[in-house]
Amino acid sequence: MDEFERIAYLRSCFAPRDASASPVVLGIGDDAAVLSPGTGNLAISVDAAVQGVHFRLDYADWSTVGARAFSAALSDLAAMGAQPKAALMALIAPELKDEAFRLLIDGYAAASVRYRCPVIGGNLSRGSELSITTTVFGELHGAGVTRAGARVGDSIYVTGTLGDAALGLLLLDARRPELGRAFVERWQKPEARIAEGASLTGLASAAIDVSDGALQDLGHLCAASGVGAELRAAALPLSPNFAELARRLGREPVELALTGGEDYELIYTVPAGGAGGPGTCIGRIVEETAGITVRDANGRPLALQTRGYRHFQG
Amino acid sequence: MDEFERIAYLRSCFAPRDASASPVVLGIGDDAAVLSPGTGNLAISVDAAVQGVHFRLDYADWSTVGARAFSAALSDLAAMGAQPKAALMALIAPELKDEAFRLLIDGYAAASVRYRCPVIGGNLSRGSELSITTTVFGELHGAGVTRAGARVGDSIYVTGTLGDAALGLLLLDARRPELGRAFVERWQKPEARIAEGASLTGLASAAIDVSDGALQDLGHLCAASGVGAELRAAALPLSPNFAELARRLGREPVELALTGGEDYELIYTVPAGGAGGPGTCIGRIVEETAGITVRDANGRPLALQTRGYRHFQG
Repeated sequence: MDEFERIAYLRSCFAPRDASASPVVLGIGDDAAVLSPGTGNLAISVDAAVQGVHFRLDYADWSTVGARAFSAALSDLAAMGAQPKAALMALIAPELKDEAFRLLIDGYAAASVRYRCPVIGGNLSRGSELSITTTVFGELHGAGVTRAGARVGDSIYVTGTLGDAALGLLLLDARRPELGRAFVERWQKPEARIAEGASLTGLASAAIDVSDGALQDLGHLCAASGVGAELRAAALPLSPNFAELARRLGREPVELALTGGEDYELIYTVPAGGAGGPGTCIGRIVEETAGITVRDANGRPLALQTRGYRHFQG
Repeated sequence: MDEFERIAYLRSCFAPRDASASPVVLGIGDDAAVLSPGTGNLAISVDAAVQGVHFRLDYADWSTVGARAFSAALSDLAAMGAQPKAALMALIAPELKDEAFRLLIDGYAAASVRYRCPVIGGNLSRGSELSITTTVFGELHGAGVTRAGARVGDSIYVTGTLGDAALGLLLLDARRPELGRAFVERWQKPEARIAEGASLTGLASAAIDVSDGALQDLGHLCAASGVGAELRAAALPLSPNFAELARRLGREPVELALTGGEDYELIYTVPAGGAGGPGTCIGRIVEETAGITVRDANGRPLALQTRGYRHFQG
């Protein structure tokens, strides 16, 4: 396929499925796409998936790479409590075989359909390194759930379980995916927590998604809010077999759960006395000067390696 | 600067200058930016500038590279007749010295101020190849000027002059920029034709910007509209000294004007009898079966090398 055949393929894959409910006035193929905004505000975010940094083809096939890039971008909307409305795909790629191109686009388009978030435009460029940069648009009722609203005394929650994706990546690193297929899938096929995020509006005081590790992302939330945090290690939601398998790979489970990235779960805070929402309570917000502490079952602070998650070591 | 210092630098450079008139509810620093949409529709486009493909540091300094990436992205909004409202910057970069990073961001931010189009978010990623992917948002009153509305009998116009940027690039290739500094500047520092584009709403039947060469971009407009075109070579608006300098570099002026890219002028069509707008009339729309023809002063069709403009030869 030449460039124009590829654009035609993109147009056919990304054709809107449900035009009646769509805010899309004009989709792929003109100088710009046109959205008819709804009554709410528009949340906007952009995220890049770079080969060798965010994905490797020996760790996920092309179709999975496409879907994963889409989910990772949407996760930022989930963290605001926004409802996805549309996406743009900017693809920079070296000579890519037609088969690889089709699989990548098919995976991306399938994610777009699953999230009901049509791809309305994009850009194709040559380049020596493959990257997929996705801009996403979501609708917000009200101002959205930012990182900056946490207050001392709020409870800290997290959706789902922590560390699964990082454990899956360790299994791939060790060439032992068969030890925990479910963990490998959590890394390969993350899901943006759209419904959970939407349920936080009017309930959570602040929220962030876990892309760089729970401690690091909670740190961003605390910095934006001007607060500190205290977590209870025993309260962390871990998947069955997570602790056992982590130890088998030589990793301390609590540390892996708190520093592993790419879970795309949501960490959020709730004012004292408020409903807890979809997650598990893991701690509380304290004064900024206290920093971030993790305590064991006896209340003793743990010494953790809190370095940030670095995706692949470059 | 580490990643967080760089993000802080971005926040300071991209701080909104004119908050009162701004649709920006939430800017850089949270999971997503938030825009308050106006009464019109939102035009959205994304464009990538890739090192070695769209820019080279021996042809433009870092600051110019930043400004150029911004202008190229906004040109797509100009072609729709949209008014720029906001932009997102996704930067993929290898280890970049602080000085280079600052110049790149300063050039980008200066363009953002000049176009009154605040940068409200973005993404920083590691990568081995530098690219700047810019998503732009503009407001449209009505549906915008698409590529698809040209009809047989419409007149074809172009803003400004054609071929100047391509001639500037040839001068840089030849290491003779002193022969035509103005042409080199047209390549290095293109301006998106925002005001001209805005003036086309309600006047033009179709429009496109000239990024890949006038013939190729007019071809896209014709394909989208299902029409053909006939151009008069003698009518093409050329800068003073353009023809002479093109010939000195061994290029036929009309061909260079029609196939040279990155002018970022607007080609648009106007129904018969309509006002001509800001541009120069260069031809008319004909039946699709006639294709695209360029005629000399005697009405004879010219045989042109109509290959697309390829930015740098990779």
